[in-house]
Amino acid sequence: MFKETLRQVVESTEGAIAGLLMGFDGIAVESYTRDEATDAKDINEIGMEFSVIVGSIRRAAETLEAGGAREVSIQAEHLVTLIRVLNDDYFLALTMRPDGNPGKGRFVLRTTAPKLIAELS
Amino acid sequence: MFKETLRQVVESTEGAIAGLLMGFDGIAVESYTRDEATDAKDINEIGMEFSVIVGSIRRAAETLEAGGAREVSIQAEHLVTLIRVLNDDYFLALTMRPDGNPGKGRFVLRTTAPKLIAELS
Repeated sequence: MFKETLRQVVESTEGAIAGLLMGFDGIAVESYTRDEATDAKDINEIGMEFSVIVGSIRRAAETLEAGGAREVSIQAEHLVTLIRVLNDDYFLALTMRPDGNPGKGRFVLRTTAPKLIAELS
Repeated sequence: MFKETLRQVVESTEGAIAGLLMGFDGIAVESYTRDEATDAKDINEIGMEFSVIVGSIRRAAETLEAGGAREVSIQAEHLVTLIRVLNDDYFLALTMRPDGNPGKGRFVLRTTAPKLIAELS
């Protein structure tokens, strides 16, 4: 069921390449990649890097009393990644090409989050 | 001159609290806070945390061949921080309240970046 939800997230966002549901321990629950040529290992590798980054952002935000981190977006030259923190244990990431639609992606992540949170608990 | 540039960045963005020009070594070049009540130490502390985070994001992006990281945005419960990577050594950060205008903030950071890059080199 996670796979189908991730598929919908990726397919409904223009330019999206991959979706990932992952624990802050760096272990992927499920992933979906649009392009069959994309190596499944790649998306997990990306996720593991991001689990460390988002973990440190969460700790920093708490230390600074900025409140819980909710969203992180990282725009690099060739890839844009949007991250939505679901709860203390899991986050949802969506990676897209720079010419994709990040506004739509953020909207889809935000509206999908409650469903995933319910399924994860 | 950096102070005046940071002042313009902060004052022209609705809801913005502070602007920071910092090296990836965590040493601030200059900062500007709108609210006099905000402790100057706070913005430097925020910047030091973010220099570590953005540094790890840059390394991850390079490892993953996502290209150079250009922009990072972190939305927490009480604060939104936008970060623009200027070059290999420096970044520009703008912190705002959640009801601020991040779109305007990103625009201002993007248009201000070339000026700061020129002044830093």
